[in-house]
Amino acid sequence: MTVTAGSSTTPGTRRPLDLGPAVALASKESGHQIPLAPEFVSPDDFAPLEVVYDFGRVRREDIEAGPRSIWRYKRLLPVPSDIETIPSTDPGCTRLVRADSLARELGVRRLWVKDDTGNPTHSFKDRVVAVALAAAREFGFRVLACPSTGNLANAVAAAAARAGWDSVVLVPSTLERAKVLTTAVYDGTLIAVDGNYDDVNRLATELAAEHEDWAFVNVNVRPYYGEGSKTLGFEVAEQLGWRLPEQIVVPIASGSQLTKVDRAFREFGELGLVEPTPYRVFGAQANGCSPVASAFKAGLDVVQPVRPETIARSLAIGAPADGPYVLDTVRRTGGAIEDVTDQEIVEGIRLLARTEGIFTETAGGVTVATAKKLIESGQLDPDAETVLLITGDGLKTLDAISDHVGPKATVPPTAQAVHEVLGQAGS
Amino acid sequence: MTVTAGSSTTPGTRRPLDLGPAVALASKESGHQIPLAPEFVSPDDFAPLEVVYDFGRVRREDIEAGPRSIWRYKRLLPVPSDIETIPSTDPGCTRLVRADSLARELGVRRLWVKDDTGNPTHSFKDRVVAVALAAAREFGFRVLACPSTGNLANAVAAAAARAGWDSVVLVPSTLERAKVLTTAVYDGTLIAVDGNYDDVNRLATELAAEHEDWAFVNVNVRPYYGEGSKTLGFEVAEQLGWRLPEQIVVPIASGSQLTKVDRAFREFGELGLVEPTPYRVFGAQANGCSPVASAFKAGLDVVQPVRPETIARSLAIGAPADGPYVLDTVRRTGGAIEDVTDQEIVEGIRLLARTEGIFTETAGGVTVATAKKLIESGQLDPDAETVLLITGDGLKTLDAISDHVGPKATVPPTAQAVHEVLGQAGS
Repeated sequence: MTVTAGSSTTPGTRRPLDLGPAVALASKESGHQIPLAPEFVSPDDFAPLEVVYDFGRVRREDIEAGPRSIWRYKRLLPVPSDIETIPSTDPGCTRLVRADSLARELGVRRLWVKDDTGNPTHSFKDRVVAVALAAAREFGFRVLACPSTGNLANAVAAAAARAGWDSVVLVPSTLERAKVLTTAVYDGTLIAVDGNYDDVNRLATELAAEHEDWAFVNVNVRPYYGEGSKTLGFEVAEQLGWRLPEQIVVPIASGSQLTKVDRAFREFGELGLVEPTPYRVFGAQANGCSPVASAFKAGLDVVQPVRPETIARSLAIGAPADGPYVLDTVRRTGGAIEDVTDQEIVEGIRLLARTEGIFTETAGGVTVATAKKLIESGQLDPDAETVLLITGDGLKTLDAISDHVGPKATVPPTAQAVHEVLGQAGS
Repeated sequence: MTVTAGSSTTPGTRRPLDLGPAVALASKESGHQIPLAPEFVSPDDFAPLEVVYDFGRVRREDIEAGPRSIWRYKRLLPVPSDIETIPSTDPGCTRLVRADSLARELGVRRLWVKDDTGNPTHSFKDRVVAVALAAAREFGFRVLACPSTGNLANAVAAAAARAGWDSVVLVPSTLERAKVLTTAVYDGTLIAVDGNYDDVNRLATELAAEHEDWAFVNVNVRPYYGEGSKTLGFEVAEQLGWRLPEQIVVPIASGSQLTKVDRAFREFGELGLVEPTPYRVFGAQANGCSPVASAFKAGLDVVQPVRPETIARSLAIGAPADGPYVLDTVRRTGGAIEDVTDQEIVEGIRLLARTEGIFTETAGGVTVATAKKLIESGQLDPDAETVLLITGDGLKTLDAISDHVGPKATVPPTAQAVHEVLGQAGS
């Protein structure tokens, strides 16, 4: 596969723009609207842009009759109306697992785990990338790109391959070999950059400005990309039998996902797809990168950037773009934000694996451990129905547990030796 | 978690045995029947046993109204009638992907990939283990066990954790650290055995005889376990819109999976769930472990054991138990069996990733590469609709590709440096 270099052709729109129910972009601060375009900052006030919709009537039957993927919610996403006919990784419709064993351990009445490890590249990033790609195609882009240190790189490279697009993925040259392999295998253009993630990010923004046919999913098409996270909220509500949970715990990286889950619940309520019952949104951060939790606890409206130092690398964003909106959402709904240590993260991973047979990456460990802490501190109501978002797979962060788990013993190949181990191990 | 050691209690049946439509076990050679029991060898002729059913009437509507997991086919499996209410990993209902890009590369008209990497522990083993666990529970077992070198270990440890059972997983002490971690995290009893896989297997058989409450999924409850593979065939047919494909390519390890996919297609036809249209079953092996392919090519009915030497470790069974039945199935349906080199396996992995964005383990590389070879040799009809079974995830066999893929370049963090790479890389 090749990528067109140098100053590129102006994207041509091959047909009238079809982004389904999306009608405009609006500043998240002033609400000032601009036409749909591959823009991410409001020219009005430099605030982030978000998608504005005219949904019309959306019925449960329309959704239920749709495909077993996020495209069943196409009437609520900025994607073309024939999206299910276009090759994509078709993420979504992952399991909502009734987690009674974990509930008993945590001392809560009714608990669910939304297990997003079942996505094509095993993280929720497949959702946001699929929506970004759909919008990018409409805008006439030809290359899918991103800066990344892991899950996003996998998702972009896989989605581009499936769609027959070229991809450009920029990663720090220090990235672990496993993450390089799981991106490079899709045969896009993977480039290692000498520098840290901030350097890579800056380079991405520079390249996005130069290459008019490159869609950087989390830069120039970010407003569309972010909307993909709504499908987590939609699925939870549909899988609960068309109703909202009372509490939900969401990990915070940029903060976008948490605000989009809230937006999904509100949209479902406003459209009459569910009863608009009250719900509380809780945020989960790692101790070593907890700027939003710190702001929450201090009662602040702004988020002070930090230098991340945590094993939960997929959440290690020191200056989270949506931090203030997370604070708004959590406070409006009566939730809270907590943070947990690296040791608690590992314990969270192990607790979920031991009780429910679900192996999550460090971000999921953050969610489980934070839920535990919120229950113990009385901030999360143990009698209210609760959902935990598990957004990525343990296979991708094996290093986190490598010093903590292993065989009970190494024995010679005799039954007697096995019996001795079992005698030691238990009753 | 603890495991009861020493001579164990006799399994007590807590209620009348409910294995759904299963009514007996029968010798695969003589057909001689015995009552349902945790047995795997016919006392009559020492042949493998298989499950005999009385299906009654099964309608498409009954299946379609069922859960989004293998339990939608409970009326065709040896599992209790209330199986969907019992905690399990609920595998199955993985994607059937229309693979037009891969079809173009291979020169075939209509191609599908059954992508079983979406299962809870990312291989088809979740299917067979879930059925084995369900049957084992009915027989009063209390511990789920297996000898394994990878996928099966993950699936058993996860399924036991989810069910609240103890597990005993035996692995060779030389097993790669990553496979140890992905099993140990579920906190069952993982024991490393000094010896090769044959030593571990012998030890498992010895332990199965000693511990009456231990269900070794692939030893004493093997007839039930194997039935789980039928769900791959059921899903393919249902996902194609209740019809059979014309050709299907299946990897061969023990050979059980291939024979069960055939059985699934026949059962669907006999029950009137699909038109019993003709289909051809093809087998895929690695060159370094191709005893069944060799027997097929030599026109033999028996399979000569070999010593495996291949990167496709999940297929590396030198003395495949179901080899003769594979030969029967392939010859009866007009298929063929081919084998491919390690290099072709890696090319197969890369081809599938590049064209469809699906990253498979080595076994999937075997399937893709074998399909390519069968097409090139004219054995597989390029005009007939074909399904490839992709049964496991590339994240589990990163070593196979680590010398073959990587970044296109490592550059300083400047746009100019990126442009230079792209100029070198292509147009």
